Amino acid sequence: MAEDFLRDAIKDIKDYIPGKTPQKRGVIKLASNENPFGPSPKSLAAIEKAAKNLQVYPDQKSILLREALAKKFRVSFDQVIVGNGSDELMQLAAAAFLRPGEEVIIPEHTFSLYEFVARLFDGKPVFVPLKGLEQDLDAMLKAVTQKTKMVFLCSPHNPTGSIITRKAFHEFLQKLPKNVLVTIDEAYAEFAEDKTLPESLSYVLEGRNVMVLRTFSKFYGLAGLRCGYGFAPAELIKYMFRVKPPFNVNRLAQAGALAALEDTAFLKMTYKNNLEGKKYLYAELDKLGLSYKKTEANFILINIKYPADELFLKLMGAGVIIRPLTSFGLPQAIRVSIGTKEQNKKLMASLEKAIS
Amino acid sequence: MAEDFLRDAIKDIKDYIPGKTPQKRGVIKLASNENPFGPSPKSLAAIEKAAKNLQVYPDQKSILLREALAKKFRVSFDQVIVGNGSDELMQLAAAAFLRPGEEVIIPEHTFSLYEFVARLFDGKPVFVPLKGLEQDLDAMLKAVTQKTKMVFLCSPHNPTGSIITRKAFHEFLQKLPKNVLVTIDEAYAEFAEDKTLPESLSYVLEGRNVMVLRTFSKFYGLAGLRCGYGFAPAELIKYMFRVKPPFNVNRLAQAGALAALEDTAFLKMTYKNNLEGKKYLYAELDKLGLSYKKTEANFILINIKYPADELFLKLMGAGVIIRPLTSFGLPQAIRVSIGTKEQNKKLMASLEKAIS
Repeated sequence: MAEDFLRDAIKDIKDYIPGKTPQKRGVIKLASNENPFGPSPKSLAAIEKAAKNLQVYPDQKSILLREALAKKFRVSFDQVIVGNGSDELMQLAAAAFLRPGEEVIIPEHTFSLYEFVARLFDGKPVFVPLKGLEQDLDAMLKAVTQKTKMVFLCSPHNPTGSIITRKAFHEFLQKLPKNVLVTIDEAYAEFAEDKTLPESLSYVLEGRNVMVLRTFSKFYGLAGLRCGYGFAPAELIKYMFRVKPPFNVNRLAQAGALAALEDTAFLKMTYKNNLEGKKYLYAELDKLGLSYKKTEANFILINIKYPADELFLKLMGAGVIIRPLTSFGLPQAIRVSIGTKEQNKKLMASLEKAIS
Repeated sequence: MAEDFLRDAIKDIKDYIPGKTPQKRGVIKLASNENPFGPSPKSLAAIEKAAKNLQVYPDQKSILLREALAKKFRVSFDQVIVGNGSDELMQLAAAAFLRPGEEVIIPEHTFSLYEFVARLFDGKPVFVPLKGLEQDLDAMLKAVTQKTKMVFLCSPHNPTGSIITRKAFHEFLQKLPKNVLVTIDEAYAEFAEDKTLPESLSYVLEGRNVMVLRTFSKFYGLAGLRCGYGFAPAELIKYMFRVKPPFNVNRLAQAGALAALEDTAFLKMTYKNNLEGKKYLYAELDKLGLSYKKTEANFILINIKYPADELFLKLMGAGVIIRPLTSFGLPQAIRVSIGTKEQNKKLMASLEKAIS
């Protein structure tokens, strides 16, 4: 193939490295921050019902789901968009707004999709180092140039679990030029204990160039269904719709997500289990003398003394799949999802054995 | 919003116009070429089973489904890709290969997604008129320039129902420069009676720049599930994977599509019903003296004497939703999907009344 057969952009795009999936029974996966209780039961019932009409194209505007989200989050219908996972929404924003050569500020050691969408539309990713495993908003502000078009923030941050505080986010927006689009990825927000999360939606309501991303993949236990949602001022949403493939969100995702929103019992159980699991894991990690980062999400970053890829293999041998953070640029750290009580126990027992 | 906040490309992108969906009971939809028998029952069973693990991310490479497709179509695994609908595969091809300003040759009066993906990646659509409602391959060859990168063909063609013959396709490829990528969209191929369909896969096997697109949306009755598949030489597939969002095809789509492939009884029934419906509709249209195009798909293009949008409204009033071809640039034609016996009867009764 001639070199110039390819778009220039794709030469710098790297393969995505997913969490490994168990191939054997009895192996537990704590690698992709999935809900250990499975999908919401209300969701399953809604999916079964919706499947009967699966020959029909999905609603291309996801109207029922967007109405429910608008009501729940107290925004207007035209400030909501639904995607085939929230990663699609990042891509739509880039497709609508990112002009070739414009800069996209991204924290180092983060979810790789931010870089992917920037490169896909010929943008220039500008990475800003973390400071003590936290996103360094001051340094990100300093990275702003005339060519900056977008900033990606992640709160709670994958893979560190730390949040950007309400105050820090507010000050950041005060200082950031208004023509820069800030995408704040809140995929894990429902797990947070800290009540000082950014009031990100208030900026959407004000009409700032802010896009807030949420997902049904984590808290709602629907990663396999692919459904994410986003909030932004109506004018931004309008242009994202224009670059959206017509039938991006399948019928079952629209139905399953809608039902999951109302599954209060399941959501309470998920929150409580995560909180208890976190406390248990903190205590056990302290006993082992391992250093870790306190988390507001459903995973914990643990610093280890030797290569994460080696520990990954050892643990996989013991039937526990975790995420080595090598692909995040942290080759001596792992990320473990908080599981059920039993899973957490098995994780800690295997970890203790592996590092001793 | 400042004009230069937007990507230039999106200024020329038009909204997609979908088939209308019934809002009332008893209304039949013959507007989107969906399977009138609903989804394959084997598919539904597989979906229900797969839903139990919906908290887990989908296989990002759709391995089981691609293996089954490779086996069925006698190509190798690395020549197959699966997408969130086949429209996603068109988009991946553009994302991987279409350089800004390169030309994309598209038949006039066709599925609007070809133009959409060309514009999305800053390509230049070049429209070639049909000739007697058939794709004019000679004229398309004449439209080739140094800047031509892609050609979209559709066979059977939406919305006319005509195929490109094996011989015509072969001669086209003989004359086309080898560095031009030909995408042949075969979304309706399973319905064709004509045995002279192009041997499109043989060119993939030869390593020509040919991509063959198929879908589970039509014949398999799974439009709501979003699952399309494509065949191309392994080197092209490799680059399409690189620009693919990691979890593009949801778990239920992978499971449902896999099961549908094996639902022989359902597929036979679908084929037979379509053939019989086609003959019935031809006979009834002849009685009414309406001119139509013989079809190799599951829909018929009918020429009418007055505005299609008006007929659409009349028929909707009578409880039948059809597709006016105004958005395809054919304001005096409609496209009707072939339904069940009862649906076809209702269509013809309503049509007779509407035009009398």
